[in-house]
Amino acid sequence: MSILVVGSVAYDTIETVSERREKQLGGSASYFSIAASRFSSVRAVGVVGDDFRQSDMDLLVSKGIDVAGIERAEGKTFSWSGRYHQDMIERDTLATELGVFETFQPVLPIGWSESPYVLLANIHPSLQSDVLSKMKSSKLVILDTMNLWIKNTREELVSVLKDVDILLVNDSEARLLSGKESLSEAATIIRDMGPEKIVIKKGEHGALLFCKDSVLAVPAIILPEVVDPTGAGDSFAGGFIGHLAAEGADRNSSDLVFRQAMVSATAVASHCPEAFSVEGLLSMDENSYQSRRDTLLDMMVP
Amino acid sequence: MSILVVGSVAYDTIETVSERREKQLGGSASYFSIAASRFSSVRAVGVVGDDFRQSDMDLLVSKGIDVAGIERAEGKTFSWSGRYHQDMIERDTLATELGVFETFQPVLPIGWSESPYVLLANIHPSLQSDVLSKMKSSKLVILDTMNLWIKNTREELVSVLKDVDILLVNDSEARLLSGKESLSEAATIIRDMGPEKIVIKKGEHGALLFCKDSVLAVPAIILPEVVDPTGAGDSFAGGFIGHLAAEGADRNSSDLVFRQAMVSATAVASHCPEAFSVEGLLSMDENSYQSRRDTLLDMMVP
Repeated sequence: MSILVVGSVAYDTIETVSERREKQLGGSASYFSIAASRFSSVRAVGVVGDDFRQSDMDLLVSKGIDVAGIERAEGKTFSWSGRYHQDMIERDTLATELGVFETFQPVLPIGWSESPYVLLANIHPSLQSDVLSKMKSSKLVILDTMNLWIKNTREELVSVLKDVDILLVNDSEARLLSGKESLSEAATIIRDMGPEKIVIKKGEHGALLFCKDSVLAVPAIILPEVVDPTGAGDSFAGGFIGHLAAEGADRNSSDLVFRQAMVSATAVASHCPEAFSVEGLLSMDENSYQSRRDTLLDMMVP
Repeated sequence: MSILVVGSVAYDTIETVSERREKQLGGSASYFSIAASRFSSVRAVGVVGDDFRQSDMDLLVSKGIDVAGIERAEGKTFSWSGRYHQDMIERDTLATELGVFETFQPVLPIGWSESPYVLLANIHPSLQSDVLSKMKSSKLVILDTMNLWIKNTREELVSVLKDVDILLVNDSEARLLSGKESLSEAATIIRDMGPEKIVIKKGEHGALLFCKDSVLAVPAIILPEVVDPTGAGDSFAGGFIGHLAAEGADRNSSDLVFRQAMVSATAVASHCPEAFSVEGLLSMDENSYQSRRDTLLDMMVP
């Protein structure tokens, strides 16, 4: 069943201690869509500028992603530039240019408002709210956000959270949003804001799924080398909702399918940091996906 | 079967953002012994000063710990003073007074050199080496260490590691010792130094067990409140080797028993941060231990 994602399509310039890559395909919607496309059909909503390479659009299409919701506007594609530290976790943002994203107003192609699965990727909560208000008969709504929106647009974010089934954040964001240091208390506070389930991403330490009566901790797969961790969280989101869409899950499904989705999400996301841009995700085939899933289960079950 | 532990018995002064506790029982051997005593008989080797309270010695004895190896020397008991940050993870050492520990020479009571299980807790590697050289017919030798020894006494540490079965360190120590950022590479390098298995403790993110052909990731139990995390790593070590001793495991046992020991270790250690000093550990009863184990398995198995 179809997943609708609204998010950024971007050009990233990434520096690591050993390499620098310019203007490579990035953005939450790009990573998410490619990751989710392994499981389900994906409809992408976003905007790119007139500098956006046709080859990048073709790449998305080649993964079966419906790009009818990606508007081509006059101006420059949203761009982000960052430098990773030696540990490949800490990073400094060197530049952010909103470009065509500054005036982006999401428009859904005809029929897309009936998409059963909705991923509101990490963008301004008013845009997330705008898209969500157009959706009819959704089975599951997942929202990702970041420190910037929690700090600067808290009211809008809290408002849209009321209609969200699952919140996807990292641990510092969960603490910032809830005002609680303990993640179990943070999850309780956030649940009162609307989302029934909370996924807390912890990078190399894995991820936690808080359901009403249970918690699942999934470790990250330990990679011999991290080349570029950009987009791993968005890839995780793609694998997560992708699994749920493939299973036909909805907000009333048992915890089990959500727990299994965490495993799929981790297996998919583990490919992302192995290469720059979306190259790691593109290198994933059925063998590597299944083998990562097996590795992960072996890491989890004592 | 008996476990011999050599380590520090200390008086800690702990400050958190909300409380300060002076001269409370601490030290690696204290935490370790109490944690391990749930599973097995424990023989403690260490030194205390003439200021050491008889009530603290009685406490150890009440847990069935054989304290015949704890020497009472003239002078002050080793003391450590630290202040935790808001996150209850970062901490600053305010003072360290070695006291009687400065001239400590471990002496094993008669018969103790036949102890099948040996835990060389976090002390100077030359003391660890001294004790290890006296051991006959050990079934398992586990060593804990810290940044200080890795940096300042690397040669002695590497020398004693040759005869160690399992190294227990935290993630930054594993990286420092191996010179590798990736924990899988770090484990490979450390294995070449001697230990067949490596346990990497990650505090609130749980712990990893690297065996030759497998990795197990155990999450930490998520506590509503952390009062004082001091000693959690030593408690983990106590639960770990305690489980192995209770099962009669040796260095050739299958990975399964070591994986199960990680679960027991986490269940035990989760009690430690719930109160100051060893009070959290002392509050553990069979119900709370089993319930933590159940919680943990529910967090692990998707």
